[in-house]
Amino acid sequence: MSLITQCVRRTLKGTALLTTACAAFMAMSASAADKVYRLTMAETWGPNFPIFGDAPRNMAKMAEEMSNGRLQIRIDSSNKHKAPFGVFDMVKSGQYDMGHSASYYWKGKVPNTLYFTSMPFGMTPPEQYAWFYYDDGMKLMEQVYEPHNMLSFPGGNTDVQMGGWFQKEIKTIDDLKGLKMRIPGFAGEVLAEVGAKPTNIAPGELYTALERRTIDALEWVGPSLDLRMGFHKIAPYYYTGWHEPATELQFLVNKRTWSKLPDDLKAILTVAMKAAAYDMYIQSTHESGKNWAQIRTEYPDVKIKDFPPEVITALREANDKLLKEHAEKDEMAKQIQASQAAYLEQVRSWTDIATKAYLNNFD
Amino acid sequence: MSLITQCVRRTLKGTALLTTACAAFMAMSASAADKVYRLTMAETWGPNFPIFGDAPRNMAKMAEEMSNGRLQIRIDSSNKHKAPFGVFDMVKSGQYDMGHSASYYWKGKVPNTLYFTSMPFGMTPPEQYAWFYYDDGMKLMEQVYEPHNMLSFPGGNTDVQMGGWFQKEIKTIDDLKGLKMRIPGFAGEVLAEVGAKPTNIAPGELYTALERRTIDALEWVGPSLDLRMGFHKIAPYYYTGWHEPATELQFLVNKRTWSKLPDDLKAILTVAMKAAAYDMYIQSTHESGKNWAQIRTEYPDVKIKDFPPEVITALREANDKLLKEHAEKDEMAKQIQASQAAYLEQVRSWTDIATKAYLNNFD
Repeated sequence: MSLITQCVRRTLKGTALLTTACAAFMAMSASAADKVYRLTMAETWGPNFPIFGDAPRNMAKMAEEMSNGRLQIRIDSSNKHKAPFGVFDMVKSGQYDMGHSASYYWKGKVPNTLYFTSMPFGMTPPEQYAWFYYDDGMKLMEQVYEPHNMLSFPGGNTDVQMGGWFQKEIKTIDDLKGLKMRIPGFAGEVLAEVGAKPTNIAPGELYTALERRTIDALEWVGPSLDLRMGFHKIAPYYYTGWHEPATELQFLVNKRTWSKLPDDLKAILTVAMKAAAYDMYIQSTHESGKNWAQIRTEYPDVKIKDFPPEVITALREANDKLLKEHAEKDEMAKQIQASQAAYLEQVRSWTDIATKAYLNNFD
Repeated sequence: MSLITQCVRRTLKGTALLTTACAAFMAMSASAADKVYRLTMAETWGPNFPIFGDAPRNMAKMAEEMSNGRLQIRIDSSNKHKAPFGVFDMVKSGQYDMGHSASYYWKGKVPNTLYFTSMPFGMTPPEQYAWFYYDDGMKLMEQVYEPHNMLSFPGGNTDVQMGGWFQKEIKTIDDLKGLKMRIPGFAGEVLAEVGAKPTNIAPGELYTALERRTIDALEWVGPSLDLRMGFHKIAPYYYTGWHEPATELQFLVNKRTWSKLPDDLKAILTVAMKAAAYDMYIQSTHESGKNWAQIRTEYPDVKIKDFPPEVITALREANDKLLKEHAEKDEMAKQIQASQAAYLEQVRSWTDIATKAYLNNFD
């Protein structure tokens, strides 16, 4: 029996005279059980952005239902806070309690945040989740975010990303030289290393840029989000992936906010973030399947292409060279790379005899 | 402000005389907030069975923490309830509130429960989760369990299962004729169709049976659980999978139990089951990677084999024939098969250009 129950029972038995101590305790208990924690969250995405934006909305809904309304999370989209790439700073400072974004957006600020989204030639989604939850991933991510007063959690996966839409076929490594391609981040650095010209173009201008050949190619996500962009209408080649095999988004939580939550709400928030992240992975798989069927039906001439082995080898060498440079400059980068490489080697040997063998048995 | 807070404030302001209505409301509120729901769960597995047993234990732990102790789930293993395959009946009757098992164990009782674990030549784990959560899977499963007074939820995935351990290499379909193999369930029926002799042997006797050639082959799970069985010490061939590409375990909940839970505890239970199921998938991937590395190191002579295309084709035809027979006898079976086949076609087209292409690009 809790103290509040004892307190109520005592008053009911007696003369209904409430002792001061008992009344004070009741007020306190009522307010503790009642207390609503209102958190704010800044997301990098615009309002109603599908899939990426569904993950934080689903998370907030689960948290509110599980807490019987004691945990309320208000999500501000980029049109509200005006700083899609300021989420790191706004959560660090406490301007927002939480954020939903992607860890590799902060690589200019904290280079080692790069490793917690997806790496070229890296792990697939289940492999990477295994690294996060059953190997050293979460521990290493915690170390990287610790000095910035934040906790970071997996925030939803896009599934394997496609290599992108190309106007011309890529037959040799020479076809990449001088190629103007929208491909941001570390993968852009890898492409630059083999002679391509990565460019950054605002999402709203991508379609026109590709149509008018201002750029020769671009990558976005996969059919799940590419369909609405319309690239299949203007580019004949859709290349398979190499650069972001398991793009994982990110929940950020300010540490002061976290420390103020009671244990049950910490548990609710943790499980809600985890379930919403896994759900987004499965939703991405579903939406890509559905949208790829639509693209194939309406535009049967779109050609799926794999980069030739020569090109893959060149990209891989460029990737390894850049990673080595990072590791030589930074002990923590070296440690994270070593952990990812060792884990990939172990888990991929399994994936090869399981998922890969199963899929190849049915050609 | 809640009613209880108003009530306490009113008594504090006034003469500390508690009105009867107010006192009664307080007693009611206190007991509702305090009420502990103690549920019992029967699992098919023995005590401390790894991975399969971790899923319900993790689920119960998350539920208890998120509910601040208001939801307590006591798990009875098979040594306690003595009926590993009686879980369906015990939850249906209300003898237990919940169960953790696998849906295909009930196919002798309710044939259509077969379809919710894994089907030969069927979906991989992320494909099947997408079918459950973003297509018709959950709805169809609800219809099958409805008449039995139970709700059924995904309960954890083993990842792609291996085709099993063989004493002799399988080169043609003739090598399967007369082959004595421990392979239960629908896959056993498929093997019988091509002339093999599926047998059922208690888990504790499997090692000796395979060693003494009482059986020629057996399937268990994958390295995650095969390592502890020791089969790699006595059989030279480890075949890749075809028969259970995404074995999903199951949580069962008695409907009367469910209807008595308040909404927040329903939400907590639902999310805890979902997160525990996803987690078991990722744990299986991790454990198989780790254990496969150990097997390869200690027994480098173990040979990974794919069944030849001729054998796969024969198994596939046998599978299709048996499925057709089921569908002709049962309208619901027909409907579930149609849903799975259509979904597999859609989602596999995506898996082929995403996961499969990515894995094949790096040979």
